[in-house]
Amino acid sequence: MDFDLSPAQQELVDLIDDVGMREFRPKAFEQRFRREVPRDNLRRLGELGVLGVCLPEAHGGSGRPYLDGLLAIERIAHACPVTGDHAVMAICGPAMFIAEWGTEDQKARYVPPVAAGRSGCWISLTEPEAGTALTDLTTQATMTAEGCRLNGFKRPAGPAEDADFYLVFVRFGPGAKGIGAVIVDRDTPGLTLSEPRRWMGDAPWCELTFADALVPAANVLFTGEAMRKLLGSYTVERCAAGAMVLGIAQIAFEQSVAYAESRTQFGRPIADFQLVQAKLADMYIRLQSARLLLHRAISADTEDGLPDRALSSAAKVATVETACFVCDEAMQIHGAMGMSVDTEPLEWLYRYVRPYAVAGGTSEIHRSMIAAELVGRRFGHRP
Amino acid sequence: MDFDLSPAQQELVDLIDDVGMREFRPKAFEQRFRREVPRDNLRRLGELGVLGVCLPEAHGGSGRPYLDGLLAIERIAHACPVTGDHAVMAICGPAMFIAEWGTEDQKARYVPPVAAGRSGCWISLTEPEAGTALTDLTTQATMTAEGCRLNGFKRPAGPAEDADFYLVFVRFGPGAKGIGAVIVDRDTPGLTLSEPRRWMGDAPWCELTFADALVPAANVLFTGEAMRKLLGSYTVERCAAGAMVLGIAQIAFEQSVAYAESRTQFGRPIADFQLVQAKLADMYIRLQSARLLLHRAISADTEDGLPDRALSSAAKVATVETACFVCDEAMQIHGAMGMSVDTEPLEWLYRYVRPYAVAGGTSEIHRSMIAAELVGRRFGHRP
Amino acid sequence: MDFDLSPAQQELVDLIDDVGMREFRPKAFEQRFRREVPRDNLRRLGELGVLGVCLPEAHGGSGRPYLDGLLAIERIAHACPVTGDHAVMAICGPAMFIAEWGTEDQKARYVPPVAAGRSGCWISLTEPEAGTALTDLTTQATMTAEGCRLNGFKRPAGPAEDADFYLVFVRFGPGAKGIGAVIVDRDTPGLTLSEPRRWMGDAPWCELTFADALVPAANVLFTGEAMRKLLGSYTVERCAAGAMVLGIAQIAFEQSVAYAESRTQFGRPIADFQLVQAKLADMYIRLQSARLLLHRAISADTEDGLPDRALSSAAKVATVETACFVCDEAMQIHGAMGMSVDTEPLEWLYRYVRPYAVAGGTSEIHRSMIAAELVGRRFGHRP
Amino acid sequence: MDFDLSPAQQELVDLIDDVGMREFRPKAFEQRFRREVPRDNLRRLGELGVLGVCLPEAHGGSGRPYLDGLLAIERIAHACPVTGDHAVMAICGPAMFIAEWGTEDQKARYVPPVAAGRSGCWISLTEPEAGTALTDLTTQATMTAEGCRLNGFKRPAGPAEDADFYLVFVRFGPGAKGIGAVIVDRDTPGLTLSEPRRWMGDAPWCELTFADALVPAANVLFTGEAMRKLLGSYTVERCAAGAMVLGIAQIAFEQSVAYAESRTQFGRPIADFQLVQAKLADMYIRLQSARLLLHRAISADTEDGLPDRALSSAAKVATVETACFVCDEAMQIHGAMGMSVDTEPLEWLYRYVRPYAVAGGTSEIHRSMIAAELVGRRFGHRP
Repeated sequence: MDFDLSPAQQELVDLIDDVGMREFRPKAFEQRFRREVPRDNLRRLGELGVLGVCLPEAHGGSGRPYLDGLLAIERIAHACPVTGDHAVMAICGPAMFIAEWGTEDQKARYVPPVAAGRSGCWISLTEPEAGTALTDLTTQATMTAEGCRLNGFKRPAGPAEDADFYLVFVRFGPGAKGIGAVIVDRDTPGLTLSEPRRWMGDAPWCELTFADALVPAANVLFTGEAMRKLLGSYTVERCAAGAMVLGIAQIAFEQSVAYAESRTQFGRPIADFQLVQAKLADMYIRLQSARLLLHRAISADTEDGLPDRALSSAAKVATVETACFVCDEAMQIHGAMGMSVDTEPLEWLYRYVRPYAVAGGTSEIHRSMIAAELVGRRFGHRP
Repeated sequence: MDFDLSPAQQELVDLIDDVGMREFRPKAFEQRFRREVPRDNLRRLGELGVLGVCLPEAHGGSGRPYLDGLLAIERIAHACPVTGDHAVMAICGPAMFIAEWGTEDQKARYVPPVAAGRSGCWISLTEPEAGTALTDLTTQATMTAEGCRLNGFKRPAGPAEDADFYLVFVRFGPGAKGIGAVIVDRDTPGLTLSEPRRWMGDAPWCELTFADALVPAANVLFTGEAMRKLLGSYTVERCAAGAMVLGIAQIAFEQSVAYAESRTQFGRPIADFQLVQAKLADMYIRLQSARLLLHRAISADTEDGLPDRALSSAAKVATVETACFVCDEAMQIHGAMGMSVDTEPLEWLYRYVRPYAVAGGTSEIHRSMIAAELVGRRFGHRP
Repeated sequence: MDFDLSPAQQELVDLIDDVGMREFRPKAFEQRFRREVPRDNLRRLGELGVLGVCLPEAHGGSGRPYLDGLLAIERIAHACPVTGDHAVMAICGPAMFIAEWGTEDQKARYVPPVAAGRSGCWISLTEPEAGTALTDLTTQATMTAEGCRLNGFKRPAGPAEDADFYLVFVRFGPGAKGIGAVIVDRDTPGLTLSEPRRWMGDAPWCELTFADALVPAANVLFTGEAMRKLLGSYTVERCAAGAMVLGIAQIAFEQSVAYAESRTQFGRPIADFQLVQAKLADMYIRLQSARLLLHRAISADTEDGLPDRALSSAAKVATVETACFVCDEAMQIHGAMGMSVDTEPLEWLYRYVRPYAVAGGTSEIHRSMIAAELVGRRFGHRP
Repeated sequence: MDFDLSPAQQELVDLIDDVGMREFRPKAFEQRFRREVPRDNLRRLGELGVLGVCLPEAHGGSGRPYLDGLLAIERIAHACPVTGDHAVMAICGPAMFIAEWGTEDQKARYVPPVAAGRSGCWISLTEPEAGTALTDLTTQATMTAEGCRLNGFKRPAGPAEDADFYLVFVRFGPGAKGIGAVIVDRDTPGLTLSEPRRWMGDAPWCELTFADALVPAANVLFTGEAMRKLLGSYTVERCAAGAMVLGIAQIAFEQSVAYAESRTQFGRPIADFQLVQAKLADMYIRLQSARLLLHRAISADTEDGLPDRALSSAAKVATVETACFVCDEAMQIHGAMGMSVDTEPLEWLYRYVRPYAVAGGTSEIHRSMIAAELVGRRFGHRP
C-alpha cells in the first residue's frame, strides 16, 4: 500500500497548481458575476498537455491512467471551478468514450481538438421522462441512406455556447439493448438548442431538440448492444465529477482555516471556539476520507479496466455529499459574509457543487446500486 | 393543553391564505428574477389590519398576542416569501420595539405608518467587528445641543430602497450598559447608504455609514441601561424569523408531496420509492416539531411577558435548521429540475432560508445560550 | 392554543413525581443488576388511581383522556424505567383494548385488576415470519364446541413471570379481515412459555407456544372484521411507548446538565466547553420538540377519537430517536464513567430505550406509513 | 499510489483469517455470556508470530511496519472481538513502548513474553481527575534508594485477571515535563487492584491503587522530559484501537448483507426495500472510507516515523464513529432479533465498540486536536 503520488503525478499536480493559481485563480471568482467559457484557460491547459492526460498518445494525449486525470481535474477545479467543470468533459467526457470505442476516423477527427483545448463537448443522455430511469430514453435514431436520422428531445446537455459536438445517447431499437450513441456536431441540420438556462450555481444548460436531424453514418459510435460498455465508461466520468467537487470544496476548506485564524470575535480568533474547531475537523476528516475513496475507486483493478461499480458509486456519493457539507460549513464559519453574494465566493461554491447530488445519478440511486452489488443481484424498480 | 387555533386566529389565518394565495402567490416566484419591494402586497396587508396585529390599538394595531403575529407571518411567507420577509419587520421589528419602549410621540409618528403598510423599517445592529459579539459595537452616539450625533459604520441592515427609517443600536457610553438605540430616518443628513448588495437568496442589503449624522433628540429610544430590555424584545423578532422560514419551507414541502405523486420514473409515481417516502416523512416530522416548538416558545409565560430565552433560542435553531433541511430535500426530490433556477422555485427557497442560520444569531451562539440557561449561568467567551 | 397542563393534570404529575422520586427512584437503577417485576410500585400506583387513569370509571378507572395517561407514563418512567415499562401495558395495553371493545363480562373480569396494579398483561402480536408484515400472522384460532382452540407460535410477548393474561392476535380466517383477538390467561392448558430471554436493556421476553390451547369462548374479543379497529387503538399504545422513552431520556438529560457543572477538567466545569454546551442544547431542543409532537398527536381530534395516524407515527419516530440520541450523548458527556455498567445508569438507559426503534413498528415502516398518509394512498410492499 | 496489500501483508491476513475463522470464531460470540481471557487464542497467535509483528526481531518479533500490525488487529477482531481487544495491547501497547524507549534489559524481560502471547499487559494513564486533561495526573513517583515509590490511584486500566504488568504513567516532577512512565508488575507490593467492573460491552476493567508501592529502579522507562515522545507513540495505539473496531464492525456488516437476502417480509427479501438498501450502502461507504483513512494515517511519513497527528486523530474519530454507526444499523436491519441479547451478537458488538468514542481520547478532544494541527497552534483549555 502506498499513498504517495508518483514523481510524474506530483509533477502534473505542481504544474497545474503553478499555472492555475497564478493565471486562473485571480479571475476565477469573478465568474460568479459574469459567467463565460474560460477558453483561454482551456487552451492553456491544452498546450500544457493536461487535457489529454488520459487520451491516447496517437491522438494528442499522453495515455496515462484515469487516476492521473482525476488528480488533474481536482487541481484545475481548485484553481478555477468553472474551468474544472469544462476539464471534466475534456478529460473524461466524450473524447474518452470515442477514444475507447470509436473508429479510427472518429478518434482522428474528435479527440485531438479536445486534447488541445480547442473543442468543447458534452454528453447528452437525460430526457424529461428518462432521468434516473436511464434506459427509458426515447430519442429515436434511424439509419437511412443519407445517414442517421434523429428525432427527440434531450434535457440538460451542458451549455450551448461553447460546445462543438455532443455525444448523444439514442434509441436504435427496443429495450436496453437498443440504445446506442451518436456524435452530433453542433451545427447539425435539424438540431436546435434552447435558450441557455442556469443551474443553481449559474452554470448554463440548454435543451436539444432533434427534428429529423441528419448525422453522417460515420458519426455513429454504437447502434446498440453496447449500453453496458458505454455505461461502464460512465463510472469514470462519475469519478471525474467527484474530483471536481472535491477541488472546489478544498477552496472552501482552505479559506475557512485561514478565516478562523484571522477573524476575531470577543477579542480572540474564532478558531479558539470549539464549535468552530469541530467544523474544521469534520471538514478535514470528510475531505481526506472522500479523496481516498475516490482514488481507491479509480485504481481498483477490474477485468475491463474500469472502476469497480460499488466503489465508484460510493466515491460519487461520498465526494458530492462531502463537498456540499464542506461548502455549507464554510459559509457558516464566515457568518454573514459567507451568505453574501458579493463579499465571498463561498455561497457560490456551495451552489456550484450542490447539483452534483443529482447529476451523474442521484445519491439515492447510487445507494441502491451499491446495495445491488453487495447482494449480487439487480433490484427491480418497475411495478 | 390545547393545540387548536382560536376562532380569531383561524379567521386571521384564513384571511391571509385567501388573499395571499389569490393575490400574492401568482407573482411570488417571479421575485427570484426581478427582486422588488412588494409594496402593493404590504399595503394590502396593512389595509386588512394584518401588519398591525401585535401593535397597540391606540396606534393603528389590534394589540393581539405575539403568537397571532407569528401565525400571520408564516402564512404571509407561505403565500409570498419576499412579502413575508418585510412582514417580519413590520409585525415584530422596529415598530414593536417603539411600541414597547418609545415615547408617545415616537409611537404616534412611527407606528401607524408601519401598521398601514406604508412605511418600511429595519433593525440595524451588526457591525463588521461586532457580529456574534453584539456588545462590541462601536458606532458612537453623542448627545449635543442640536440633537444626537452618530459616527460609525453598520453592516447588513436590510435593503435601502424600501426603508423609511432604521432602528439603530449605538454606543452612548462604555460597556454593555452604554448601548442604546436611536430611530434614524432614511434622509438623515450624514447618513449614507452603500449600493445594495445581495444575500444568497437575492434579498438585498446595504451598509450604513454615519458621518456626524444628526438625529433629533426626540428620536432617541434609549441612551443606555436598556440593552437587556431591548435584547429581551429581540427574542420575539427571532421567533418571527422562525415563522417566516417555516412558511417558506411549507411551500417546498407541499410542492414535494404533489410532485412525488405526479412525477413518474420506472413506470410509477416516485412516491412509491421508499427513499422518497422517507424524505417526505422526515420533512413532515421536522416541520410539525419545529412549528410546535415555535408556538410553545412564543406562548411561554415569563415575568416580563417575553418568550422564555431557552425556548426561543431552541425555536430559532429548530425552525431554521428544519427549513434548510426541508428546502434541500425538496430540491433533491425534484431532481435536475429542482437544481435549475428557471424551472422551479425550490433552489431559490433554499437560498432564501439559508442565511437565517446566521442572521438573528448563529445557530452556534444560540446553542451556547441555551446551555447557559440550562446550567443557570453565563459563559465567558473572552480570553 | 395552550401549552399548560390543566390543574388536574398538574396534580397527577405532581403526585407521581412525589411518590415516584421518594419511593421508586432510590431503587430504580438497581434494577439493571437485579431485574424483577416492581410489584410494590405497581400496586402503589394502582392504589393511587394512576394506572386506571384512562380506564372506564365503571371498572376501577377514572376515564380521563389519553393525554393524561401519557403524562402519567412519562413521569412514572422518569422515576423508575422498569415500572414505566409495566405502566405502559397497564394504562394503554390490553385493558384499554378490552375496555374499548370487550363485552361487559370481559371488562368486569379483566379491567379492574389491571387498574389496581394487581394483574400484569401484555399484547402478543408478532410472529417469526410476521414482524413488520403484521397481517401475515398464522397463529390459528378455531371455534369449537368447547371454546376457541389456538395453535401457533408467538414471538416477543413480554415477560412470562409477571403476566396474568395476554391479548393475543390470531387468525380466524384468511386475509387481513380474518384476524381477531383473544384474551388468554397465563395458565391456559396448551399454552407453554419459553424460558425468559432478554432485550439489550435487560427487559425479559419469552415466546408463547399454543398447542391446541383451549380458551373459553367468552374470552374471544373479536373473530375478525375488526383488525382495523384494533390497530386503530394501537396508535395509542405507540404513543404510550413514546411517553415512556421520553421519561427515561429526561433522566439522562437532567443528570447530564448536573454533571456538566460538577465535573471539572482543565480546572473548570466541563459545561464551559462549547462541545458540551452544544450537546446539552441539542438534547434540550429535541426533548422539547418530541414531547410537544407526542402531546399534539394524542390530542388530535379524529372521527374515531383516536390519534391521527400521520401524527402518531411521527411522534413514535421522534420520541424514540430523540431518546436514543439523548441517552447516547449523556453517555458521551459522562466519559468513561458513562460507558461503565457499574458507575452510572446511563449506558443502561440507552440500552433500555434503543429497542423501541423496532418494537411497536420500526422507524422505517412508520416513515413509509407517514408518507402514505401524506399522499393519501397505501403503498404496496409485496412483489 | 497503490491500494493493494503486499504479498507478505496478504499472507498475514490470510493466515489470520484461516486460523481465526476456524478456531476463534466458533466460540467468539459465546464470550458475551461468559467473558474470559482467550488465552489459547493469544498463545496460538503468539506461536504464529502474529503478536510480534511490529516488535523487534531481536526480541521475538518480526519488525514489520505498523500498518501490518493494524491489518493483523483488524482480522483478529473480525474473527473474535475479545481476542482483538487483547491483540491491540500485545501488538501496539506497552511492549511497543518498551521496544521503542526501553533499556535493553527492559526489552529482554518484557517484550518476548508479549510477542509469544504468554504475557498480558495494559497501559494505565487515566485518573479520576485527569481524563481528557491527561497532564493533570497526580500519581506520584519518587526515586529512593530501594527503587521507585508510587502513590496514587489509577482509573480504568484494563482487566486485572489477565495482566502480568502495566505501563503506568506517573508524575516525577511538576508540569507536563514531569510526567514519566514505569513498568509495574502485577504482584508489586503496595499495588492493589479493585474488583473487576465492566464496560458496557462487558469488557472488565479495574482500578489500581498504589500505596507506597515499590518498583525496582530498573523498571523506570522515563523519569520525565519524555511525555512528548511517549504520547507520540500513543498515536499508534489509537490507530490500533481503530483497526479493532473496524474488524468488529465488519462482522456486523457481513451479517447484515447476508440477513438482508435471507430474511423475508411481505413475501420478498428485505434487501428489496430501499430503506434497507440505503443502510447497506451507507455501511459500505463508511467502512471503506474509514479503513482507507486509517491505513493512510499509519502510513504517513513523518520525521519521527510516527503517524501524522491530524491524520491519526481523524482516523480515530472516523473508525470509531463508523463502527458505532455500522453496528447500530446492523441491529436495526435485524429488527427484534437484533435487539435481543440471546439471539444474535449484534447488540453486543455495538456495546463493544461504543466505549472507544471515549477511550483513547474522546471524539471531542480529537476534533479540537485536529483543528489545532490545521491552524498550527495549540488551544488553551484552561480558564
